Amino acid sequence: MSNVKIIVAGPRGKMGSEALRLIENTPEFELVGCIDRKHDGEKVSDLEGLPKLDAEIFSDVEKAFQQLDADVLIDLTSPEVGYKHTRLALENGIRPVVGTTGFTQEQLEELQDLSEQKELGTVIAPNFAVGAVLMMQFSKWAAKYFPDVEIIEKHHDQKLDAPSGTAVKTAQLIEEVRDSKVQGHPEEKETIPGARGANEDGMRIHSVRLPGLVAHQEVIFGGTGETLTIKHDSHHRQSFMSGVKLAVDQVQRIHTLVYGLENLLE
Amino acid sequence: MSNVKIIVAGPRGKMGSEALRLIENTPEFELVGCIDRKHDGEKVSDLEGLPKLDAEIFSDVEKAFQQLDADVLIDLTSPEVGYKHTRLALENGIRPVVGTTGFTQEQLEELQDLSEQKELGTVIAPNFAVGAVLMMQFSKWAAKYFPDVEIIEKHHDQKLDAPSGTAVKTAQLIEEVRDSKVQGHPEEKETIPGARGANEDGMRIHSVRLPGLVAHQEVIFGGTGETLTIKHDSHHRQSFMSGVKLAVDQVQRIHTLVYGLENLLE
Amino acid sequence: MSNVKIIVAGPRGKMGSEALRLIENTPEFELVGCIDRKHDGEKVSDLEGLPKLDAEIFSDVEKAFQQLDADVLIDLTSPEVGYKHTRLALENGIRPVVGTTGFTQEQLEELQDLSEQKELGTVIAPNFAVGAVLMMQFSKWAAKYFPDVEIIEKHHDQKLDAPSGTAVKTAQLIEEVRDSKVQGHPEEKETIPGARGANEDGMRIHSVRLPGLVAHQEVIFGGTGETLTIKHDSHHRQSFMSGVKLAVDQVQRIHTLVYGLENLLE
Amino acid sequence: MSNVKIIVAGPRGKMGSEALRLIENTPEFELVGCIDRKHDGEKVSDLEGLPKLDAEIFSDVEKAFQQLDADVLIDLTSPEVGYKHTRLALENGIRPVVGTTGFTQEQLEELQDLSEQKELGTVIAPNFAVGAVLMMQFSKWAAKYFPDVEIIEKHHDQKLDAPSGTAVKTAQLIEEVRDSKVQGHPEEKETIPGARGANEDGMRIHSVRLPGLVAHQEVIFGGTGETLTIKHDSHHRQSFMSGVKLAVDQVQRIHTLVYGLENLLE
Repeated sequence: MSNVKIIVAGPRGKMGSEALRLIENTPEFELVGCIDRKHDGEKVSDLEGLPKLDAEIFSDVEKAFQQLDADVLIDLTSPEVGYKHTRLALENGIRPVVGTTGFTQEQLEELQDLSEQKELGTVIAPNFAVGAVLMMQFSKWAAKYFPDVEIIEKHHDQKLDAPSGTAVKTAQLIEEVRDSKVQGHPEEKETIPGARGANEDGMRIHSVRLPGLVAHQEVIFGGTGETLTIKHDSHHRQSFMSGVKLAVDQVQRIHTLVYGLENLLE
Repeated sequence: MSNVKIIVAGPRGKMGSEALRLIENTPEFELVGCIDRKHDGEKVSDLEGLPKLDAEIFSDVEKAFQQLDADVLIDLTSPEVGYKHTRLALENGIRPVVGTTGFTQEQLEELQDLSEQKELGTVIAPNFAVGAVLMMQFSKWAAKYFPDVEIIEKHHDQKLDAPSGTAVKTAQLIEEVRDSKVQGHPEEKETIPGARGANEDGMRIHSVRLPGLVAHQEVIFGGTGETLTIKHDSHHRQSFMSGVKLAVDQVQRIHTLVYGLENLLE
Repeated sequence: MSNVKIIVAGPRGKMGSEALRLIENTPEFELVGCIDRKHDGEKVSDLEGLPKLDAEIFSDVEKAFQQLDADVLIDLTSPEVGYKHTRLALENGIRPVVGTTGFTQEQLEELQDLSEQKELGTVIAPNFAVGAVLMMQFSKWAAKYFPDVEIIEKHHDQKLDAPSGTAVKTAQLIEEVRDSKVQGHPEEKETIPGARGANEDGMRIHSVRLPGLVAHQEVIFGGTGETLTIKHDSHHRQSFMSGVKLAVDQVQRIHTLVYGLENLLE
Repeated sequence: MSNVKIIVAGPRGKMGSEALRLIENTPEFELVGCIDRKHDGEKVSDLEGLPKLDAEIFSDVEKAFQQLDADVLIDLTSPEVGYKHTRLALENGIRPVVGTTGFTQEQLEELQDLSEQKELGTVIAPNFAVGAVLMMQFSKWAAKYFPDVEIIEKHHDQKLDAPSGTAVKTAQLIEEVRDSKVQGHPEEKETIPGARGANEDGMRIHSVRLPGLVAHQEVIFGGTGETLTIKHDSHHRQSFMSGVKLAVDQVQRIHTLVYGLENLLE
């Protein structure tokens, strides 16, 4: 089997540089070029902090797609740029794996049409952490049988928003399968306000912020005489790369657009 | 909708008496009789420690099935007796929900044939704890993406066997989807024997036994920069009753034999 | 060594009946009588649900203290009655171990004077769970070195108050050693109110309420690159009895009043 | 109050470079020089990967101690070199804080004599992680009341030894206060060898090794109806620096040698 030839867009970002390391450490992956609005014509190995890979950097996207013999584009840029890259990649016979969020419904439909017309797979995923995505899918499944659920998410104390986006997203997925329900005793009282956490459709979400924490979430389901807990602990953004690898593997087997990593996890 | 009319076999056992309490507390369930080799002709309410239910006790199984107008048999006896009860129930138009283990493959096939011929559902499950069954299913699913896994099970210090049956069963389910793999560093050394736990196909199982524990298991999956943990804590055998209820509900909708609660959880 | 001869006041309460079981199961403890406003003259073994112990029940407290040859009174009644019992016990040469709360400062001082004058030990403790008391003491100690702390307490969903009394008490003990501090990022925002929990002197307390939980608390301390967690899980009020036993043992070695089990734990 | 003037020996090591960062980030600390067998005469800021601090590097230790006006030596070298540095520091009126292990009993006694003769504090600690040291101290305390204990330590799968040094050390501290006891049911059986973990004086130690873990330990105490758990999670060697800071603060207040950080934590 020949190698998968990959272009990375956004190689200097946090996620992009991890993607380069993923390619460097995966024998069947090969970097054939990068797309970056700066550093046109330089080599990846010229840039500080990046792996010593020989591939050339292009600022002109169309030129890159035409000159390079590539199977897959890994795009870790912004929504606006990502949309343009995805279109162009499909038009040039390259399968896109896109890690940016914020595409409009209209854009997604257009890209799906183009994907199917070209018979080329496309994967767009707001979250590439396989562990986090499984946690959310398991939670959605468990909630069918255990409608009483609370979420505790814990992060370092530099985080600004509470609850975390993942906690809210988890609650929303649970809402899809769970009848709205106010949990706890009907007459329960908070003697100090906030003790029972944030109320999302009757579910409670608790946000812990402490130095020494990184990124953690547990979803606790309670039933008579038992509890079931699904917990994800992440301490490095490398954890996203298992999902990127999975997407690169799968995008070559599909002929339509798949949105969300969960739809690649059978 | 009319009530579900239920016969319970084995009402004085630990599980059987919980099943009576389940029926007592479920408005749409109704106990129409019990099967017990003792106390023929008495009422459930005559027996100490059981709910104050009016239903009659039969020692003659055939008589019970013929005289009583029942939809479902909940059988919580032994494998030998359970097999006979299941056959007779199907022959009398009653759907069996059976909580005993140890049926032979031959018996299961025979009961499946009978079930389909009569077009009556049958549910046979070695484990009715929905939480434990979900833990095992989630673990099997997660292992596809995280082949590095260890199991910690914790029980009270009166338990004789280590590892627990649930831990071994979980490991076996994972083996079905995971390539055999020796985990840990190839040169790792135990400076005190046993530190790395029991070795099941390269997976490690650790058994904690302490007073104050009841029944707990966590399955930990490790990937680059992240871990995913699925944990079940049980402190009362009431936790089995959610599975019995689910089986009673489902057995009326199917027309074949289903083995294992996991096959009723979509 | 001769046995410790014990009177129990309040034998039919939840705690009182556990105390009878403790005495029954402790070879060096002996029940010589009970104090109960009902059942005067009956035997403990006459009452349903209590251990088969021979000791007589007295409704007249003074009579009990004069007729019975006792070393220790275990009082598990109410504050008003408990105060009277404690006074009378000391006056009759019997050492009191008292599990009721709510004594006034004046009453405590008076009982301490009486205790020292009689040279008889007295132990009064609002909480006899050794595990919970150690959790609080360790938390107070750890807070000297880790001023960033959050408390998560989890209870069954029939509990009315949030946060739990133990959680508030833990926070107050920490306040004694910790400079007041607002935790988290100065600009953190709750996108759903309550996410960050109850605010007690800048510490955050989170209350989880689910079926299947019993009584659990964890105190999490965060420092640079590390966290330290102290966790107590209780699933039966038997857990209080180790503290009662400790108090009975210690009350015979002291000659003053000790308030709080923590002051008996060196 | 004037600044604490500090010399660091071993600035290029993992711990040494963290110590430089600690000094850089602590307003009342000031680096006056470093000791390193290489780079004599260069500045700290000349070396790659170290903070931009102006202090000079000395390869001649005696010269450093004589020329520099220093209050404290932080020594993070090896036992042989560390011993020599500690002696010389005391002879030159500088208080040593030493993070190396492996000093002989004879060397420790000699250094204690010298410390007391010079009336200068000395702190020697094999472990500077305050969280880990507190975990061990709390465990030793709890074991007095809960003799049934098991230890679970979890590390990344590149670790070679099982159990970890900290787990064995924790068990040994517990042994000092706990009567030897074989835990678990007397007739318990391992159906797969190793399930019950390593046996250290009847206590059980379990070692988990998975990718995605860093360094974690929990000590679980079991009593009737309750468990008490003390857990330490560390994900960065920065966590050692709180202990170094504490030692620097305390070494100026004592006039003898203190061995072990636990003896500085009241």
